[in-house]
Amino acid sequence: MVRSRSQQLFVRNLGGGRQPDDLVVEEPMTIQLDGHDVSSTMRTPGHDFELAVGFLLAEGLITGTEVAGIRYCGTGSPVDSEFNVVTVETGGQVDAPTARMGTISSSCGICGIDAIETLTERLRVLPPYQRWDLETLIAGPDLMRAAQPLFDATGAVHAAASMNRAGDILVVREDIGRHNAVDKVVGRMVMDDLIPASPDAGTPNEADGGAQGDYALVVSGRASFEMVQKAWAAGFTALVAVSGPSSLAVSTARRAGLTVLGFARDGQAKIYSPLEIVD
Amino acid sequence: MVRSRSQQLFVRNLGGGRQPDDLVVEEPMTIQLDGHDVSSTMRTPGHDFELAVGFLLAEGLITGTEVAGIRYCGTGSPVDSEFNVVTVETGGQVDAPTARMGTISSSCGICGIDAIETLTERLRVLPPYQRWDLETLIAGPDLMRAAQPLFDATGAVHAAASMNRAGDILVVREDIGRHNAVDKVVGRMVMDDLIPASPDAGTPNEADGGAQGDYALVVSGRASFEMVQKAWAAGFTALVAVSGPSSLAVSTARRAGLTVLGFARDGQAKIYSPLEIVD
Repeated sequence: MVRSRSQQLFVRNLGGGRQPDDLVVEEPMTIQLDGHDVSSTMRTPGHDFELAVGFLLAEGLITGTEVAGIRYCGTGSPVDSEFNVVTVETGGQVDAPTARMGTISSSCGICGIDAIETLTERLRVLPPYQRWDLETLIAGPDLMRAAQPLFDATGAVHAAASMNRAGDILVVREDIGRHNAVDKVVGRMVMDDLIPASPDAGTPNEADGGAQGDYALVVSGRASFEMVQKAWAAGFTALVAVSGPSSLAVSTARRAGLTVLGFARDGQAKIYSPLEIVD
Repeated sequence: MVRSRSQQLFVRNLGGGRQPDDLVVEEPMTIQLDGHDVSSTMRTPGHDFELAVGFLLAEGLITGTEVAGIRYCGTGSPVDSEFNVVTVETGGQVDAPTARMGTISSSCGICGIDAIETLTERLRVLPPYQRWDLETLIAGPDLMRAAQPLFDATGAVHAAASMNRAGDILVVREDIGRHNAVDKVVGRMVMDDLIPASPDAGTPNEADGGAQGDYALVVSGRASFEMVQKAWAAGFTALVAVSGPSSLAVSTARRAGLTVLGFARDGQAKIYSPLEIVD
């Protein structure tokens, strides 16, 4: 599988010679729910089932428990493209997806406030603010960085990871798309029955450092609105980003009660949410 | 307009105190063509008309010459959201957009090869490979970096720029979305009648350093397939990225005859396309 995630070709280095170079692989993938097209994304092949499940969860189309099967669209086709359509099957347990544009549709205008309201209606409120050890959170990106072989090879790929309260990095996924990397982490956790990733999610998990279902999401890039949406939908109680958040990401996180740290590098960070630890 | 592009709020710095911080603004915007919804994107407000026109051009829905008017959806509405829908009007000169998912739709699978074929059918081939002065191209990102006030303020925003053969940076746009930054540059060039950005585009432009319509596109991030698609659709003959390209971006660029440099930093770069200067 790793072979398909990077590809070697010859490039010229200025001042140097012609030499082989690893490039991250990018291929289109279509996600279907019970046979209906939902979305297409350009992704790095690998962990495709996780990507499909994580995406559908973030969009509010499944909660995770309904997943009865996941399969590639084609069987026996002579072309690789049969691996570029993934269908998640619930046996009709969920509503068929309706045609729409991205995560937000509009007639004559929606604004950031509307976007937050829409999420608030759809998503369960996070459990009361979970106090994290800030030093633990800040260390997340550096720990994740040590587990990014695709970035080591190509220098051009994003990563996301789940971390427990003990500060252990549990799942790391790399992808050319930052959103895909998050969806793959969430999809893995759905399959492992760890979603929602909040303390009220269920039983303590000894093998998991006694985390009791309380996880942080670590991302290699910025924290946009969509990253906060995905973190919230999965029930993470903290989001740690290597770069900075947007205004809408911060106001959404404060509404959700999601802890957000940005610019978490070299033992430092800025805390953007929740308000209680800012003011 | 600049005021709306970043927002101050209080954050806590670990090891420091509570201090104001600039955040890049992110708001949803819907793009319509002759009143039909085409797409929604999370963007940084500002240069919205350019964003709409550049996006529609990249998608192959307009060539630029048909644009008869551009306006915000609402008039007199009491809410800000009236500024979050932009309609590009051609007076029915182009086909109404059909419902689709992103840039690529599928029944049971398309692969990277198909994606390139689709573009090849739709887009005009670039003029025969235009030899650029490589040192000029490599300097692009550093020159662009000097004109990114929003990045200076927030540290969390992407940029794109057009550059002529003389090495002058002509238009710089910043946005929380890397694709939006490119669309805004292209949209500006459509309005200035500079598209296609290729040498066969028309008359020399003295004010433009005698560029004769030969432009490079400079981007602050990676060069994904979509960045190559947008560069090709606009007729740029070179693409310079601060980070690396994907495998599909390189094979698409080689097909298009588009020069691609990646990791263009500190006077160095790697050359990925075209094949002639690699092999």
